[in-house]
Amino acid sequence: MTIAAIATYPGHAALGTIRVSGPGTLDIISRFVVAPDLKPIPFSNQPRHSFFAKFMDANVLVDEVVAVYFKGPHSYTGEDSAEITFHGNPILLKSALRLLVESGIRLAEPGEFTSRAFRNGRLDLTRAESVKRLIEAKSEYELSAARAIYGGELSRRMSILRSAMIGLKAETEAEVDFSTEDLTFQSREERRARVMGLIAELDSLLARGSATGRIREGISIAIVGVPNAGKSSLLNRLLGYDRAIVTEVAGTTRDTLSEELQIAGIPVRLVDTAGIRETNDIVEREGVRRSQRELEESTLVIHVIDGSRESYASIVESDRDNVIHVINKADRLHPGANPGSAIQVSCLTGAGMDHVEEAIRDRVLERPESRDPILLEERHRFHLLAMKATLTKIMELWQQNAPDEITALEIDDVIDHIGSITGRISNEEILGRIFSTFCVGK
Amino acid sequence: MTIAAIATYPGHAALGTIRVSGPGTLDIISRFVVAPDLKPIPFSNQPRHSFFAKFMDANVLVDEVVAVYFKGPHSYTGEDSAEITFHGNPILLKSALRLLVESGIRLAEPGEFTSRAFRNGRLDLTRAESVKRLIEAKSEYELSAARAIYGGELSRRMSILRSAMIGLKAETEAEVDFSTEDLTFQSREERRARVMGLIAELDSLLARGSATGRIREGISIAIVGVPNAGKSSLLNRLLGYDRAIVTEVAGTTRDTLSEELQIAGIPVRLVDTAGIRETNDIVEREGVRRSQRELEESTLVIHVIDGSRESYASIVESDRDNVIHVINKADRLHPGANPGSAIQVSCLTGAGMDHVEEAIRDRVLERPESRDPILLEERHRFHLLAMKATLTKIMELWQQNAPDEITALEIDDVIDHIGSITGRISNEEILGRIFSTFCVGK
Repeated sequence: MTIAAIATYPGHAALGTIRVSGPGTLDIISRFVVAPDLKPIPFSNQPRHSFFAKFMDANVLVDEVVAVYFKGPHSYTGEDSAEITFHGNPILLKSALRLLVESGIRLAEPGEFTSRAFRNGRLDLTRAESVKRLIEAKSEYELSAARAIYGGELSRRMSILRSAMIGLKAETEAEVDFSTEDLTFQSREERRARVMGLIAELDSLLARGSATGRIREGISIAIVGVPNAGKSSLLNRLLGYDRAIVTEVAGTTRDTLSEELQIAGIPVRLVDTAGIRETNDIVEREGVRRSQRELEESTLVIHVIDGSRESYASIVESDRDNVIHVINKADRLHPGANPGSAIQVSCLTGAGMDHVEEAIRDRVLERPESRDPILLEERHRFHLLAMKATLTKIMELWQQNAPDEITALEIDDVIDHIGSITGRISNEEILGRIFSTFCVGK
Repeated sequence: MTIAAIATYPGHAALGTIRVSGPGTLDIISRFVVAPDLKPIPFSNQPRHSFFAKFMDANVLVDEVVAVYFKGPHSYTGEDSAEITFHGNPILLKSALRLLVESGIRLAEPGEFTSRAFRNGRLDLTRAESVKRLIEAKSEYELSAARAIYGGELSRRMSILRSAMIGLKAETEAEVDFSTEDLTFQSREERRARVMGLIAELDSLLARGSATGRIREGISIAIVGVPNAGKSSLLNRLLGYDRAIVTEVAGTTRDTLSEELQIAGIPVRLVDTAGIRETNDIVEREGVRRSQRELEESTLVIHVIDGSRESYASIVESDRDNVIHVINKADRLHPGANPGSAIQVSCLTGAGMDHVEEAIRDRVLERPESRDPILLEERHRFHLLAMKATLTKIMELWQQNAPDEITALEIDDVIDHIGSITGRISNEEILGRIFSTFCVGK
């Protein structure tokens, strides 16, 4: 069955693309897309050539387009397919899509292009799944975590693990046929070490995945200090500064940042808190209580000190290592103030703000979860944990000198879990669930 | 100077495209875009070929892409250019764009691609201007009005008018050289008729443009009736019905329709009004006053009658021809009610709603401004009106037997106005103003 969908985001923009895939592609595009002089276009002679063309509804021009035909299997889906690029008007694209659909092809289901790519062996399951994550990633950090999977890192690790398990199985089966008596102490130890190595690798993968999961929602940084130290001014300065960085090149971003920003590509949630002081006012006390909770729970804390005052009550314990001390109002620093190693800034003039940025960046980057992120799906985690449990069980079976036939079954179980991750063993229901959460057109 | 921009709408979708144009295109894409095996891609040997490729930041994969190189002048802009299609993630596209810009090309200004296309003679000014209208059109109707210009209708008319004026000028100049005595009464009359024909054509173009301007914001339909006749239910039924039509194929629309819908591609604003009755309540009286104003000012009126009651006070004058009478609650029609030619519906069950839809559609389509729309810019209107005034003046000059030298100057004036419309005579300041309102990437 031939399918079609709008593949670009439905907004008013310079370009918008409709994607077609399936055996009827050539037929359908030849029916609607003709040369500027209305003659047929030799799509089949020139696959992958970008033709300047007219998209016609009978004798009426719908739009001038650029059309490309991809001959299967050399296409994203592995099938015959095409991309037609229109002026980027959603109404125009919808009416063109309606014309295609009325000619007997159907609207693609969410994720159907990628699902076809998987079924036609163009992408393994981990890479196919990651396409959705690549598209939906909300920060540079999340993007690299998704890219690790899309780049095939999980596939490669699973492929190595699979070879190891097949080797182990071959050895085990050899032992079923011959006597286990031949197995020396050394080779037993060597095998145990090998499996422990595999478990360690699974652990490290799971740890990287968990850290990525934690960090995806963003690192939180609480801005704390006594009332009127300049916490909100600092927040605005930080947002303003980074906003400028973000939009400098983009020019087109429409999202409001509110209190979220990216630092070194990592999403950071800046939390402005109520000033902390002793108070009898019930409402204020609740605010202070919340500030203290943020202070406890945030990944990082920026402690803002009012430099225009001679002294201040320390509200942050001195032994905490996740605190950045900032002295504000440095432009009118009190002669008796003792800045020590704190960063001096003036939120009024902006002086020193670059040092605060730098300190945050350093602290964010030195966190272990900032490095080497990998975006594991729940599904991956489930199978990785199951493999780990089974590998541990195999070691126990060896310990108990269980029959090799039993061990061989457990090894098969691990291989099955690997197959479930990469899609070598696939279950229609699971596949349906995976691709149905994609956007249409991918 | 080589420029780049994101050309698709910045949302999360299957695909997103970056466009590059200018002399440095080949150099820049060769630097970032390589074959899957990391070897160089022979872009210059195969212009317009869609290469599956990797977009690399030094040794790090940014994304797998499809890249096409267009060799000037056979490109949209008429210059060397390229389109690189990524996974549709705005963060991904922005970081790729940042890499390009950091390599010495610059971000495109709004409309700069189209402005270059115009400057390189790929599109005349009317067509170039209409690209923005094509992209921004909010209804099928507006789209066809923009398409008339993009399809070159105004250019063609201006070109014919220009030939006529140049012919007239040649004749006039011939008369300057020879004697005007030779001019017979017939040829004078024939020339007057010719100019009157041109004026009539300008009039018809201006009228089509004005109607288009009026209709672009939508035809308004007021739903009126006594309290509790079922006006809001009818509105909801109409919105629900059409909403289904709109989203049936689209699947992706995110706009809320509120009380706007399209009927036969024409934007329609449905206005629910307060029930009209005699009242002493000040607030209700204000509501009734507003209903009556809508009744007067709307293009069409749907008069909803409560069919479950024996009689009703007529609140709409019987001689108005823009009223559709609808009897609601037809499922429990009062035995004494006299439906006449009114459409019977039940908003409760939905019965009869298709007839209301049909009646609205017929009424909308029979309006003269629904046919043959053309989207004139203010600029076009200004020059067309000036041409008309000058043509009228030329007829007066003939009437007064003014010297042909004077008439020739007026003819030149008309030719100048034509040139201003098509861009043959172009003023940098005006061009800047036209293209600066475009979106970036077009």
